Amino acid sequence: MGSRPKQPGSLMAAEIAEQPATLARQFETEGPAIRSVAERLRKADPRCVLFAGRGTSDHAAVYGKYLVETVLGLPAGLASPSSLTAYGAPSRFEGVLWVVVSQSGTSPDLVDSTVAAARAGAATLAVTNAPSSALATVADLHVDIAAGPERSVAATKTYTAQLQALWLLVNSWAGKDDSTVHGVADAVHGMLNQPAVPALAARYRFAERLVTAGRGFSYPTALEAALKLMETSYVHAHAFSGADLLHGPLAMVDQRDPVIVVAPEGVGGTLLRPVVERLRERRVDVCLVGSPELGEDAGAATVIPLPVGLDETLSPIVQIVPLQQLALHLALTRMQDPDEPRGLQKVTETR
Amino acid sequence: MGSRPKQPGSLMAAEIAEQPATLARQFETEGPAIRSVAERLRKADPRCVLFAGRGTSDHAAVYGKYLVETVLGLPAGLASPSSLTAYGAPSRFEGVLWVVVSQSGTSPDLVDSTVAAARAGAATLAVTNAPSSALATVADLHVDIAAGPERSVAATKTYTAQLQALWLLVNSWAGKDDSTVHGVADAVHGMLNQPAVPALAARYRFAERLVTAGRGFSYPTALEAALKLMETSYVHAHAFSGADLLHGPLAMVDQRDPVIVVAPEGVGGTLLRPVVERLRERRVDVCLVGSPELGEDAGAATVIPLPVGLDETLSPIVQIVPLQQLALHLALTRMQDPDEPRGLQKVTETR
Repeated sequence: MGSRPKQPGSLMAAEIAEQPATLARQFETEGPAIRSVAERLRKADPRCVLFAGRGTSDHAAVYGKYLVETVLGLPAGLASPSSLTAYGAPSRFEGVLWVVVSQSGTSPDLVDSTVAAARAGAATLAVTNAPSSALATVADLHVDIAAGPERSVAATKTYTAQLQALWLLVNSWAGKDDSTVHGVADAVHGMLNQPAVPALAARYRFAERLVTAGRGFSYPTALEAALKLMETSYVHAHAFSGADLLHGPLAMVDQRDPVIVVAPEGVGGTLLRPVVERLRERRVDVCLVGSPELGEDAGAATVIPLPVGLDETLSPIVQIVPLQQLALHLALTRMQDPDEPRGLQKVTETR
Repeated sequence: MGSRPKQPGSLMAAEIAEQPATLARQFETEGPAIRSVAERLRKADPRCVLFAGRGTSDHAAVYGKYLVETVLGLPAGLASPSSLTAYGAPSRFEGVLWVVVSQSGTSPDLVDSTVAAARAGAATLAVTNAPSSALATVADLHVDIAAGPERSVAATKTYTAQLQALWLLVNSWAGKDDSTVHGVADAVHGMLNQPAVPALAARYRFAERLVTAGRGFSYPTALEAALKLMETSYVHAHAFSGADLLHGPLAMVDQRDPVIVVAPEGVGGTLLRPVVERLRERRVDVCLVGSPELGEDAGAATVIPLPVGLDETLSPIVQIVPLQQLALHLALTRMQDPDEPRGLQKVTETR
């Protein structure tokens, strides 16, 4: 007897569905270790924080940067791993905390740049799903996101696990109570299988180009949603911060281009109002992930409601879930197997 | 007698052509002032540098960040203006140099975030084309890029003037001889009116999506070229660092999607070789801006040669010129007036 043929997208679907359990388990098993890393960071008292990552992990790094800026009030930036190694080593990294985010912990440019940052005087922290990886080994400190083996090429559960681990780390470092994270696993569970998602995949069946927009804490969601859509359904999905969209690219958006706006309650949603108004004037087909009221103001064709009262800094962990499922459904609607995207391997090694 | 109707694209064409003169004049008139700002930065000895900008100025900021990282060996990052103001003020910016890049010097979020950075302890420097602007006034230090009035909505001469001003500043700060910049105005002159450019615009007449790729110092060129193409000819142009392209988005690139690879001599070009190889395997239509040898290896349909022997850190000032002209020609080929892009004003105010 042969084995049953694998259902297209079954790996990605299973890992999306695992997220509530993964997040709850991470808080239980890794919470104490993360708090102890945070304690060491508080004592080390770095003067600035640089994040590095590639692909999905880069989007988690963008989220980490916002957390450091807003929760700790410290300067934070995204590093360019290539300029730290290929163009010659940095020399003056005393007082820097270098945080490298990577699912596999193996990409040579990230390992090399972490070593270079440490040589230049930085304290180094690796956030990985692989405690025995090269990155976890070379870094001074390690946070295990403990998401379990990820078999889907398109990362889903490791992304939300990276976000939650970074949230726990930065909030503990700031001496804040981390128990509000408790509601997140349930909120993620509640976002699974939104009825609007398969309908949206059908609506986008023939879209060739797509724009996603966010601002502040919802910008990493826009980036990550665009990447999932590119990887699995091959639509040209282009993420913008709402501010940048108004500085030029808005000119190209027309009625052929669906726009997904991620506008949670809070500052990000407020800052996105002018974007939503301009899109309405241009009669653009909008999907709003956020409050139904803003969706109505936007004349949005589709609204995916976010849970009311969710802390804006935790909201990205929840926002991405229906958009992961959109990528899955859109790929399947287009007769593609999102578990076997053309031209990609699970671990990408860049130098 | 009525005035002669304006020729579509004449403002943009004129400002692209002005660039050699603008760059040469800036070195003459602003060189001493920039060296004196650099002297003050050397004395202030900041521990890290944060850049902020929007649109084209953001791409100049990315370039500035690479310069600081590689020429000075200091940690550098791109700040998120919104998180510095909308989410509450930063608190611990002692030892930070905050560099804000803006053509007009008026965008409220940049002014507000510069004030917030200064209150938190940062030294602040504005790089603008408007010495009387709000930004130039609130910042501790100012560099005037002295590009003259820019009338085209799509910024061209202010971009290359921003790059050269940042190059002069960082190299003076590092105590390096800045006279090698002399050759740049001539190199820019030599790149004007490349015969390959109108042919490329004709080739892309019906392209709906387009990808640009760079790495290291050529990454800002990829970003800026994509923005020009979006603003003026409404093609969905999407810029990637070569490394990020391999981490997922490569899956979406197919034979419908022209790819422009900016691969100068030096480290950036070397790092882009694996990207070029993958594109060749996928039989993608490639335009290579760089060395004819790499173009041949890439099986590139089009090669726009860069001057041989040009310093890689100065090369971005030269690389962008044929791509500005491509945006102009493509808009005209598509019967659009790049001087009046739909939905855009010259100065975008974001909060």
